[in-house]
Amino acid sequence: MVQDRIKKLRMAMQQQNIMAYIIPSIDAHQSEYVPELWQRRPWISGFTGSAGDVAITKDKGGLWTDGRYYVQAAQQLAGSGIDLFKASEKDTPGIATFLSGELEAGDKVGVDPTTFSFDQMQSLKKDLEQAGLQVVFTEENLVDSVWDDQPGLPDVPVKVHTLKFAGETVESKLERIRAEMAKNGSKAHVITMLDAIAWTFNLRGKDVDYNPVFIAYAIITENTAKLFTKLSRVPDEVRRFLGSTVEIIDYPEFENHLKQLADSRVKVWIDGATTNYWIVSTLAEKCPLVNSMSPVIKFKAIKNEAELEGFKACHVRDGVAMVKFLHWLEGAVPAGGVTEMSAADKLEAFRRELDMFQGLSFSTISSYKIHGAIIHYSVTEESDIPLSPTGVYLIDSGGQYLDGTTDITRAVTLGDVTAEEKDHFTRVLMGHINLNLTSFPKGTTGPALDTITRVVLWDAGLNFNHGTGHGVGAYLGVHEGPQSINPTRGFTVPLEIGMICSNEPGYYKDGEYGIRIENLVNVIRDKQKSGNDFEFYTFDYATLCPIDTRLVEKSLMSEKQIDWLNNYHQNVWEKLSPFVEGGVKEWLKQATQKI
Amino acid sequence: MVQDRIKKLRMAMQQQNIMAYIIPSIDAHQSEYVPELWQRRPWISGFTGSAGDVAITKDKGGLWTDGRYYVQAAQQLAGSGIDLFKASEKDTPGIATFLSGELEAGDKVGVDPTTFSFDQMQSLKKDLEQAGLQVVFTEENLVDSVWDDQPGLPDVPVKVHTLKFAGETVESKLERIRAEMAKNGSKAHVITMLDAIAWTFNLRGKDVDYNPVFIAYAIITENTAKLFTKLSRVPDEVRRFLGSTVEIIDYPEFENHLKQLADSRVKVWIDGATTNYWIVSTLAEKCPLVNSMSPVIKFKAIKNEAELEGFKACHVRDGVAMVKFLHWLEGAVPAGGVTEMSAADKLEAFRRELDMFQGLSFSTISSYKIHGAIIHYSVTEESDIPLSPTGVYLIDSGGQYLDGTTDITRAVTLGDVTAEEKDHFTRVLMGHINLNLTSFPKGTTGPALDTITRVVLWDAGLNFNHGTGHGVGAYLGVHEGPQSINPTRGFTVPLEIGMICSNEPGYYKDGEYGIRIENLVNVIRDKQKSGNDFEFYTFDYATLCPIDTRLVEKSLMSEKQIDWLNNYHQNVWEKLSPFVEGGVKEWLKQATQKI
Repeated sequence: MVQDRIKKLRMAMQQQNIMAYIIPSIDAHQSEYVPELWQRRPWISGFTGSAGDVAITKDKGGLWTDGRYYVQAAQQLAGSGIDLFKASEKDTPGIATFLSGELEAGDKVGVDPTTFSFDQMQSLKKDLEQAGLQVVFTEENLVDSVWDDQPGLPDVPVKVHTLKFAGETVESKLERIRAEMAKNGSKAHVITMLDAIAWTFNLRGKDVDYNPVFIAYAIITENTAKLFTKLSRVPDEVRRFLGSTVEIIDYPEFENHLKQLADSRVKVWIDGATTNYWIVSTLAEKCPLVNSMSPVIKFKAIKNEAELEGFKACHVRDGVAMVKFLHWLEGAVPAGGVTEMSAADKLEAFRRELDMFQGLSFSTISSYKIHGAIIHYSVTEESDIPLSPTGVYLIDSGGQYLDGTTDITRAVTLGDVTAEEKDHFTRVLMGHINLNLTSFPKGTTGPALDTITRVVLWDAGLNFNHGTGHGVGAYLGVHEGPQSINPTRGFTVPLEIGMICSNEPGYYKDGEYGIRIENLVNVIRDKQKSGNDFEFYTFDYATLCPIDTRLVEKSLMSEKQIDWLNNYHQNVWEKLSPFVEGGVKEWLKQATQKI
Repeated sequence: MVQDRIKKLRMAMQQQNIMAYIIPSIDAHQSEYVPELWQRRPWISGFTGSAGDVAITKDKGGLWTDGRYYVQAAQQLAGSGIDLFKASEKDTPGIATFLSGELEAGDKVGVDPTTFSFDQMQSLKKDLEQAGLQVVFTEENLVDSVWDDQPGLPDVPVKVHTLKFAGETVESKLERIRAEMAKNGSKAHVITMLDAIAWTFNLRGKDVDYNPVFIAYAIITENTAKLFTKLSRVPDEVRRFLGSTVEIIDYPEFENHLKQLADSRVKVWIDGATTNYWIVSTLAEKCPLVNSMSPVIKFKAIKNEAELEGFKACHVRDGVAMVKFLHWLEGAVPAGGVTEMSAADKLEAFRRELDMFQGLSFSTISSYKIHGAIIHYSVTEESDIPLSPTGVYLIDSGGQYLDGTTDITRAVTLGDVTAEEKDHFTRVLMGHINLNLTSFPKGTTGPALDTITRVVLWDAGLNFNHGTGHGVGAYLGVHEGPQSINPTRGFTVPLEIGMICSNEPGYYKDGEYGIRIENLVNVIRDKQKSGNDFEFYTFDYATLCPIDTRLVEKSLMSEKQIDWLNNYHQNVWEKLSPFVEGGVKEWLKQATQKI
């Protein structure tokens, strides 16, 4: 089937004299999760992983993906004629290098200019041109042109995100955006990220997996706010809610409005890191541009009081589901029949019982023993294994609620515990606690704090190969920027009061087990350390769920760390015990005992 | 006098119909210290600070400098007609904003294209053009054109940096540079940084303050190595040393060779962050360019065995000078007559007695009490104050030796000690020791380690407003890249075995005192923590000089930290005591006692 599709694509390429076509994962909105209608790369290649770019020439094809997907990609590409390029490996040629070897100098390489951000495309274009190739932007996406039963734009109605949870009116948000525009003299701001649009207009949707967003563009000017989305999916309630503040326009009309904006030749603010090349280049022909991060990204990251209240509230409910699940797990595993997949389903079932639950915030990582060491493990029917009363089980999961988004990881023992497991678990826990105990001056960035969870592991010659934490949205993306507690990004973003991050150090022993302890935390002012002319911040936490003390080696920990853990467990008991009963309550009592 | 100079400059501007001329601090080689002939900004403005850019319009002038220089600049600019713009303050307009207010749309702004790096110029050009102004590059520097008695190129002979200390032949270095060129397909590499040229050709000079470099350009191709420097200053010894490996060409000929290189239309590797705009734009017209960090910068940063041996050896000598100085200080201050300036001179005198001493590696910071809180304090005759037997004295100094470069800071009490001083000093010391005790996985960057010296201060609501450390050259610049233990830079540069950094946390109490403890450290493999498939690194240190234990509050420190300090002092005693005698030896014995 895939071969037929590639054949059709090659015919379309030939008609335009294009020698290679590049099909990245990404859509026009640079979403983490791509809606079905734009899942062009899976459609053309058969590879369904979350990351991977394809290039097709007249007789070859390549897929570039990272280490998480080598096995899956090799299986799914079999018979497609597409070769796997292992992008995480140092000596793997990139797309430009591959194409320069396959094509003649001057040959045309086609791309859909909506499928790359402006910044990405600038860099790819440079690479291809340095390789002597010519980049052509196709009017229509060539995969779309041969995809007969391609789905249309989603029709699921958009919903109002109530002010009770949003905490700020659309009018106020627009006013703040316009104030930022005035500072750099821009007369219009184009917003393309779906979570930024959902935040700005206090609306939510269901167009992609896990993120409550809907496909739309927006153009904000000094006096107007235009929201472009499929008209048939906008209910009267939303029209009434937005009133005269926002003009709702059909999604395909965006192109005309973009061209009108270009013709007006005013200064336009775009965010080249997230806005697609087609939009930016259309404007750049005629308008002076400000290319910098959209103000919405920072506004959205700093939660207001209502959002923080919802953040706390949804974590009490989410904690109840986690406690019920961990209690169930302890009984069910020895009884037999529990697998990684059935455990994940059970946890989802507990979450589905909860108020305001809207779905998972990402695909649950339910991983036992050896699978725990695969950081981004996603259980499939083929990989699924039964749990038995021994070793470490790791579950990383989260929910979307009307009042907030959760993301929690716990590693628990299902039976016997080795001294090494205890040592590793305790060091991860100490790192987790150290970040909670840290006070830091205003202006400190996430990367500067990443080391704090790591030094305890470094002391023992250990490390983990991911960041300590990521930003989290308020009933929006479970991963959001601009802040990041990570050694590789967020360098220029100071943490600010109201930002939410995950705190999730880990340790992964290849071929044996994985440990990760994750709570969501929010930045608060450290009242004790702040003075008249200087500000110190620290973290509060929202996640409520016991940490498995059977895996704790108390002798490694400092008094301060032990106190933190005991206080945490007391708080978990106080907050969650009113909502559980019987065996679950007994289990919770036991699990939150002092060490 | 300055007014006359500005008048002449304005006449020169008028002849070319230029409405504003920008005169930055920087010269064609982007040096930290500018040789006298290119000190155009001090000449035209009267302001002699190390950082500051000037813009002159037909009736106004502005100087942009940072917080270190506000007082000095205000004094030196008085009567010049040049206004001070406080660049460290948030709302101060930049040069482009200032000029857009003063000039008409379309007006010409002149710059000398050699006085900006390519990357800087790109950004300034964009700002000026967005402000509606036109940038013109003057053939000759307009300040030079009106500076009658401008000094010529320096004539001080260049010297060979012996292989014993350099540790690698010029041939081997050229081979490694060419291997890197082959990797990205470049056929020529232009080197413009003076320390990179000195390193590549194993030569040293005396053209600027504190850095043993000489004014030169270099062009490396697959088969040739051209060194452009004033011919009259190249002694026969150097000619014999370089032999047929390197072609020595007169400095002014560089322009012709650059144009020939451009005409050859081969791919050229330039480093846009450090190479001036004139060079890059001359090449860019005709050649494909690779714009990335010069390979020399990384090669130079990773010291070989001979360089590390010299690094250790020169620190023994430097430590002897420091010990003699601190012993002298303790006796001289109560006797009276010692000032910040005379103390600095005394330390320099002790260094001058040492083998292979070539000069200071930077201007000594000798600061008493309140002056200690001014991080970049540089004592002048006006600011000089006497030292008395009370409070904290801080001295930050270093030497250039044929076998290495030193940089050391000690804060010592001159008499009574308060509990607060002890608390602050001890926390700085704990941060310093924590960095020494850290093991970190291969791949860790400097910024990730910066936090380690800081958390101890953060715990007490304190912080310091500079990086933990900078790279240091081998008988080259006391500040060098690419690595930096700093929260604001070096994000993509992993620390590697053989790199030298300073470890210099501090604490500054405004209006009272400053504390900083600085040793130079070098990255080594942590044999205990490294395994077959993973590498851990840690730090060794070279600096040998007692840390004032009278300022240590032992109860704050961990056993590990106390052990480190006691071992350090034992090592200082063992390494330095053979080279001192009498009262100095007794003082050293006392100063290195266990706590």
